[in-house]
Amino acid sequence: MLQGLSVDSSGPSFTPLVVVELVSDAKEETIGWLLNKIRDQQHDGGAELLVEQLGPGVGAQEKENPNLFLVGATWQRLLSGAEDVGLFKESTDGSMRAFTCANKHNFKDFGGDGDGFLSMAECQYIIKHELDTLRAKDETHVPGYKQAKLYPGKSIIRRLLSKRILIQIFPLHDKEELKRLSFSWYKKVKLSLQPLDDIRHYYGEGQALYFGFLEYFTFALVPMALFGVPYYLFDWEDYDKYVVFAVFNLIWCTVILELWKRCSASLAYRWGTLSRKKAFEEPRPGFHGVLGFNPVTGREEPLYPNIKRQLRIYLVSLPFVLLCLYLSFCVMMVYFLMEGWALSVYDQEPTFWTGVLLFIPSIIYAVVIEAMNLIYRYAAEFLTEWENHRLESSYQNHLVLKVLVVSVNYYFNFLQNISLATLLITSQILNQFMEAFLPYWLQRRRNKKMIRKVQKRRILEDKELPLAEQVRLEADMSTYLGTFDDYLELFLLFGYVSLFSCVYPLAAVLVVLNNVTEVYSDAFKMCHVFKRPFSDPAANIGVWQLAFEAMSVIAVVTNFALIGLSPQVKTYFSDSETHLILWTVAAEHGLMAFKFILTFLIPDIPKHIQIKLARLEFESLEALKKKVKTTN
Amino acid sequence: MLQGLSVDSSGPSFTPLVVVELVSDAKEETIGWLLNKIRDQQHDGGAELLVEQLGPGVGAQEKENPNLFLVGATWQRLLSGAEDVGLFKESTDGSMRAFTCANKHNFKDFGGDGDGFLSMAECQYIIKHELDTLRAKDETHVPGYKQAKLYPGKSIIRRLLSKRILIQIFPLHDKEELKRLSFSWYKKVKLSLQPLDDIRHYYGEGQALYFGFLEYFTFALVPMALFGVPYYLFDWEDYDKYVVFAVFNLIWCTVILELWKRCSASLAYRWGTLSRKKAFEEPRPGFHGVLGFNPVTGREEPLYPNIKRQLRIYLVSLPFVLLCLYLSFCVMMVYFLMEGWALSVYDQEPTFWTGVLLFIPSIIYAVVIEAMNLIYRYAAEFLTEWENHRLESSYQNHLVLKVLVVSVNYYFNFLQNISLATLLITSQILNQFMEAFLPYWLQRRRNKKMIRKVQKRRILEDKELPLAEQVRLEADMSTYLGTFDDYLELFLLFGYVSLFSCVYPLAAVLVVLNNVTEVYSDAFKMCHVFKRPFSDPAANIGVWQLAFEAMSVIAVVTNFALIGLSPQVKTYFSDSETHLILWTVAAEHGLMAFKFILTFLIPDIPKHIQIKLARLEFESLEALKKKVKTTN
Repeated sequence: MLQGLSVDSSGPSFTPLVVVELVSDAKEETIGWLLNKIRDQQHDGGAELLVEQLGPGVGAQEKENPNLFLVGATWQRLLSGAEDVGLFKESTDGSMRAFTCANKHNFKDFGGDGDGFLSMAECQYIIKHELDTLRAKDETHVPGYKQAKLYPGKSIIRRLLSKRILIQIFPLHDKEELKRLSFSWYKKVKLSLQPLDDIRHYYGEGQALYFGFLEYFTFALVPMALFGVPYYLFDWEDYDKYVVFAVFNLIWCTVILELWKRCSASLAYRWGTLSRKKAFEEPRPGFHGVLGFNPVTGREEPLYPNIKRQLRIYLVSLPFVLLCLYLSFCVMMVYFLMEGWALSVYDQEPTFWTGVLLFIPSIIYAVVIEAMNLIYRYAAEFLTEWENHRLESSYQNHLVLKVLVVSVNYYFNFLQNISLATLLITSQILNQFMEAFLPYWLQRRRNKKMIRKVQKRRILEDKELPLAEQVRLEADMSTYLGTFDDYLELFLLFGYVSLFSCVYPLAAVLVVLNNVTEVYSDAFKMCHVFKRPFSDPAANIGVWQLAFEAMSVIAVVTNFALIGLSPQVKTYFSDSETHLILWTVAAEHGLMAFKFILTFLIPDIPKHIQIKLARLEFESLEALKKKVKTTN
Repeated sequence: MLQGLSVDSSGPSFTPLVVVELVSDAKEETIGWLLNKIRDQQHDGGAELLVEQLGPGVGAQEKENPNLFLVGATWQRLLSGAEDVGLFKESTDGSMRAFTCANKHNFKDFGGDGDGFLSMAECQYIIKHELDTLRAKDETHVPGYKQAKLYPGKSIIRRLLSKRILIQIFPLHDKEELKRLSFSWYKKVKLSLQPLDDIRHYYGEGQALYFGFLEYFTFALVPMALFGVPYYLFDWEDYDKYVVFAVFNLIWCTVILELWKRCSASLAYRWGTLSRKKAFEEPRPGFHGVLGFNPVTGREEPLYPNIKRQLRIYLVSLPFVLLCLYLSFCVMMVYFLMEGWALSVYDQEPTFWTGVLLFIPSIIYAVVIEAMNLIYRYAAEFLTEWENHRLESSYQNHLVLKVLVVSVNYYFNFLQNISLATLLITSQILNQFMEAFLPYWLQRRRNKKMIRKVQKRRILEDKELPLAEQVRLEADMSTYLGTFDDYLELFLLFGYVSLFSCVYPLAAVLVVLNNVTEVYSDAFKMCHVFKRPFSDPAANIGVWQLAFEAMSVIAVVTNFALIGLSPQVKTYFSDSETHLILWTVAAEHGLMAFKFILTFLIPDIPKHIQIKLARLEFESLEALKKKVKTTN
């Protein structure tokens, strides 16, 4: 599978999987120390991996970074690493089990010495994990850099990254497989679904779940879109129908979110991450603390008191978020004042220039909000990092929560001017193309330049670049920053659909259209614009599930508020405004109760997977009983 | 510990633990078959227990049932039974682990051959479990009773009970221990808490959790009671204060329910039921189906398709409950009509007799509702039994849900006439005394008669009854029907406090008073009125937690509705009713959101127990890895 990438330099030949790039002026001493750490035996605190410097490219005379290192490992090392990270694989009896080297032959597809048992993405994940868990023992600082302090338990890679001695670590693409994947994914015109298993195989579970969710979400919105079209086209005046539509939408939102949990559990079980998350999660690399013993596993790792984290969250982060929320409201108020003033100027003297003046507040507001969001985003990331969460999932949860609380801005903009909706969503589609194709075009130009440069020097038969050039090209590609922004985009779209379904029935149609193009542009981006990301063994879409559910609850409130405000309903209850409000509130409470009962009634995990998980747990407990017996 | 109860008849002497009572005219053939089943080796489908007929009492010449059998077991059998039921005991390293005979010496307090390691309640529970799991193999009917059909997998004991061949199975009291327990529990005047560990030791976890909850609930209500008194006494007209009081109450309700979960988890962990429930629950004895293999454990047990149960629930039980709900509303409507009519009669002609007429509708209504509740309760039990739930917990959940849905009746009565509250709660206290002391008095009379009878025949030195008389006396005591009614009572009281806190601030005081007497009367009942119940290894208060939480959500709605209706608030918003309602609704939504966030933020299980549970799970998974290694 990786034949095309074998290193043709001296030393034991191995398949390069991951690239480590140090700054070009890194000290020899530091490089030697790091390479030794990577090569050292595990019981000496090393990672026991294979590492080799990348040979000079064809354009070596130009100033290019010589400090690119290729990291790989033997199959035995990768298999023992798979055990370390707690990989779940399908066993011969069809259930998913934690892989162990000792019983490797009980696993499906395990043949020979294990070559091909792990996918390339899994190998790269294992190598990343081994590099990340390289922790300082007795060094007080990075050799050669006195200011880069180390203490026992500190992740070496993290310190090198934070001191900018290490530029980046990234996994290599596999051109052959990528070509196959991109063909089945988006290149052929097809009615079939996305190849989720192949995506997972190449990019890992986190990515595959994102694309799975995107696809699921698109299909789930189709009924809402179909219902919405006639409402928009015929502009029915009958408010009953609007209420029916809104109620349908709200219930449908609940149902699709519940069903997604089941889908996601099925996918995660098939991919082995569902039981794995349940088992045990490693601390994230950025986590720091005093080296000690984990109370659950007894393994040596940094410990950080929970109470300190709680204090940081409740005494610093929470007030900060509330302050930002308050600030954004102030900005909105200023905007309203400005707009009122502009309107009054225009009313007094309606000329072209005062007409232009009308747009000024909106533009200023948009710019200010955009800038504030950007700053806030950095602050949120900084704070969440500072809170020092032990688990990646908990870090993500706190970051997403912070960002979402302040995302209400978006909807206030929307609420101001509903007719902007079409513009907003269509602009998003345009945005996608810009995001995906502009970088691709730049990328391509660089690529071509490189090819031309290579062709100058030697004859290139199959237009395939040699490894050194390939690695350098990939090192220059932009880095994919995770699924956060992709989910955020989906979340905002879901908000438009659910919050304003009763006043803007066409939202679902536009979102479906957007999602269809989103699938293609995201797939394209993943394949051609970004460096390959490390796979992320996600078992579900994490805190986003909660965010979507919270949105669907808020949607009940806003929808009924909008129904209550609509002129049709008001004329219906023209005799008494009190009656109108009471009926609206009663209906809202009823629907809310129904929603919660529905959520409660639909099991989150399909029965057959529940049974498989229970069996695993039962077998473990039985094994524990037996184990104590043998040690007795 | 059980020396006072040793059987002094022929055969191998053993400690009698459980009594099995057959009808007095049971056929010899049947008795012989059942005793053989109980005595047979386990691999022959028997229970391998010791069983012996109870000798005739002193009043043997009178017609008394000769078919009373005492069941006991050897310590070895009890220990292997403890392994069967999956008992968790404290191991020498302080954590709770599933007991196994093979590693019995790793458990704390295990000395010698295990005598005294299991409490009497645990032994009785094990014997009950072994009797319950006696299942028919190839018998087509109970020998001697052609009409009592059996099929493979049917519980023999269940069939004998349902055909009234078996009258009852009950565990024996331990007079010595009971005396000690009752002294520390309620006989001494004290400021200390209830001896929960002793209660659990004697009655099992289910009972102990009930008393723990009762105590917790009482203490938790004290702040509400203290806040409520000045509101009642000074009759403050300032509505702000009422709102503050109501909001405090609502938040407090949420907090105490969340904290109880943590308390309950701590207790259940200490008692070994928290991990046990997580591990694996046996099917309830009443569960029937085709004999097959459990997909999780691989053990042979009856199987029943889930889809059939779902159909029964949604197509029969749900419509029935809704119908009953509708009926009870109809009855209420009729009551209102009747009352209106009585009022109009009284208005026209206000004499003594028309004054009496005013009470007639209420009395009729109370009687009808009481009768309907009784019938409904039987129907609910029948339906839930018929739904054929596999687990006792799921049976309980469905039963409680059915009963609670219709319990809204109670509150409608209450809402009609708030001033009745005092009467209602004080009547409940009177009721307790009637419940506890009337049966006790009757019991005592019987007891004295028996003692006199014995004294007639031989001199009784220490007033201690011989075993035969003791067993016969206990057989005649009433049977404790479980904690259902006790929890229901608490639930209704909690409802009064939370639903009407803003209009009736004294409710908490009355409930606290009621609970204090309730502790004593319940303790007294348990010790003196009822047969000893079998212990029930509960890990929490089950569906009642959910019921209390649901009530606290409903309470938010009713409280704000009552605040909105109150005249003080109305005068405050005298200019616009719309504003009043909108503010009320906004405040209600805000509080509801806060409540949910609070519920979400308070972890259900204390951190140190979470770690212990995670460690157990981690060790199990590690053991599973190792296990496959050894079988390899």
